[in-house]
Amino acid sequence: MKEIRIAVVGCGTVGMGLIKLIADKRQHLAEKYGCEIKIVVISDYIKGSIVAPDGVDPRAAHDALAQGSLMSIAGATDERPSLSSLLSKTRVDFVCDMTPTNYLTGQPSLGILQTALSSGVNAVTCSKGGVGKDLAGLRALARDRGVVIRYESSVLSGTPLINMVRGPLAGCEISKAAGIVNGTTNYILTMMEEGMSYADALAEAQRLGYAETDPTGDVEGSDAAVKVCILSETIFGAKMSFDDVERIGITGVTNDDIARARANGRRVKLIACAERTSDGVKGSVRPTEIDERHPLAGVGGATNAVSLTTDSLGEITIIGPGAGARETAHGILSDILDVVGASR
Amino acid sequence: MKEIRIAVVGCGTVGMGLIKLIADKRQHLAEKYGCEIKIVVISDYIKGSIVAPDGVDPRAAHDALAQGSLMSIAGATDERPSLSSLLSKTRVDFVCDMTPTNYLTGQPSLGILQTALSSGVNAVTCSKGGVGKDLAGLRALARDRGVVIRYESSVLSGTPLINMVRGPLAGCEISKAAGIVNGTTNYILTMMEEGMSYADALAEAQRLGYAETDPTGDVEGSDAAVKVCILSETIFGAKMSFDDVERIGITGVTNDDIARARANGRRVKLIACAERTSDGVKGSVRPTEIDERHPLAGVGGATNAVSLTTDSLGEITIIGPGAGARETAHGILSDILDVVGASR
Repeated sequence: MKEIRIAVVGCGTVGMGLIKLIADKRQHLAEKYGCEIKIVVISDYIKGSIVAPDGVDPRAAHDALAQGSLMSIAGATDERPSLSSLLSKTRVDFVCDMTPTNYLTGQPSLGILQTALSSGVNAVTCSKGGVGKDLAGLRALARDRGVVIRYESSVLSGTPLINMVRGPLAGCEISKAAGIVNGTTNYILTMMEEGMSYADALAEAQRLGYAETDPTGDVEGSDAAVKVCILSETIFGAKMSFDDVERIGITGVTNDDIARARANGRRVKLIACAERTSDGVKGSVRPTEIDERHPLAGVGGATNAVSLTTDSLGEITIIGPGAGARETAHGILSDILDVVGASR
Repeated sequence: MKEIRIAVVGCGTVGMGLIKLIADKRQHLAEKYGCEIKIVVISDYIKGSIVAPDGVDPRAAHDALAQGSLMSIAGATDERPSLSSLLSKTRVDFVCDMTPTNYLTGQPSLGILQTALSSGVNAVTCSKGGVGKDLAGLRALARDRGVVIRYESSVLSGTPLINMVRGPLAGCEISKAAGIVNGTTNYILTMMEEGMSYADALAEAQRLGYAETDPTGDVEGSDAAVKVCILSETIFGAKMSFDDVERIGITGVTNDDIARARANGRRVKLIACAERTSDGVKGSVRPTEIDERHPLAGVGGATNAVSLTTDSLGEITIIGPGAGARETAHGILSDILDVVGASR
């Protein structure tokens, strides 16, 4: 049985989701991949930290975190030790960063990933913060230390877009990636197609938990723009910063625009795009009319989808969930399994 | 530079497509993956064979094969040496089987794959013959000899369904795979939706080269049924033989059926399905009404698509080409790159 030792950093819904997934999948991972994932470090700024060289009981840790504090687990501390001090206390194979995203600074994700890689530990993240800010730098640091950085669930949660590009599409040259990468705005546009006003659709998205209380990051296209930066670096190896992405959100889209498009056999979607042009790689996020026969046109609600234009395969489209704690945690798990070679 | 030595077996459109792809991608493979693919054996029952320990010039070989014979290349023979004798003459890392499919016997693919694996050589195939007939046996043989068998392009040509299941979806448990896996029948159904009769749509599919002169294998669902066997073994590890698949083709579908479905917001698609049930894994191919909001409903013409029902990610759909020499050759190439670890 191959032992995989991980540090869980950030214990919001996704961090707790990963801990639960590891508990749920224990037998499956052992039987199918011959591996056991041990959680040897947990670190959360609010809920506390623990170092457990023999691994914590994931169900007990999950239940404690769900109650808001790790302190009921023997050995936990609320003294906020630094990540490097936690990593110095036991061998860790992967730091799993599941902290919230700050588009502008990239923190705390960027610092966590840098600390992990600098310490010679593989890093896996679902945050758009660090990889959206400086994927090239993180990759260089990883290469330098002989470890890897993975980030499947930073775009389309666990829907395997990034790992499909990296693995099964190897050998293809991709010239364009275009799709629906923000579930909140797609939900709002879908509701507006059904006649709801923008304001009502936004309120409904907030009620369902898709949109934040301050929905600016979604509706103005910032979330999608960060994902364009990540896709650009992944697909084209081209550094793109947030400000390089041409960005128009959905706040100006009216029910009339949508009705007019539908009358012409088209749907209005917020399309995020990274594309190789004769003038270099360009990134954009903007409301776009899509022919209703195109696969992206039919993607409704909070579902996400990306179409890749390739040289050998023409167009490939992948459709799947764009959010969710369990979906995002799956992306973390699949990154880990891929790096250790369990899935081969 | 990592040298990858391959044997090309079967030089129809796909075999020639692979040789051309390797020529076209030479620089890309060197720069991006640090590898060079050398074609050290070519074998075709009609066009001749060659063993070239230093590698053939792929462009010269392609042009000769396109003219119908390898004999213009120095060292070629038309004496039909056996594959094992060809493999004994130089080191080969991969046998690439691109021979035509016979659903019933699995030959010649099955024998080629068995010979390759028995000789301690990795095998990659685009044929549904061998893997459709006895994937479990081939896998066991490969394991026994310390090599691998790969078959991405046997289903959905190079669209990376099989490798997505194996790699990026590792850790997910899949309960159902359902989709459009035969381009000819999907093209016919799409034309019938637009008002064309079955007979006219079939004739048009034949004119475009989608359908064979004898279209039985497509329209009666045999091609799709073999793919169900391959998916069943891949996803569930469940042996399924051709006769185990419940099979209804499209010959009984009328324009009225299609019109009635459309009036109810549904599309008629030939759906191939492998599913885990309380009564074991079941396979089926049958015309099915799909809600027009589902991603499979919008898949038109010769495009293919499969939706996977998973525990962690809900439903994931991949849409892409289902045929084509270059598309299929890409699947062979991506299998090779994955096995040698070039894409990691």
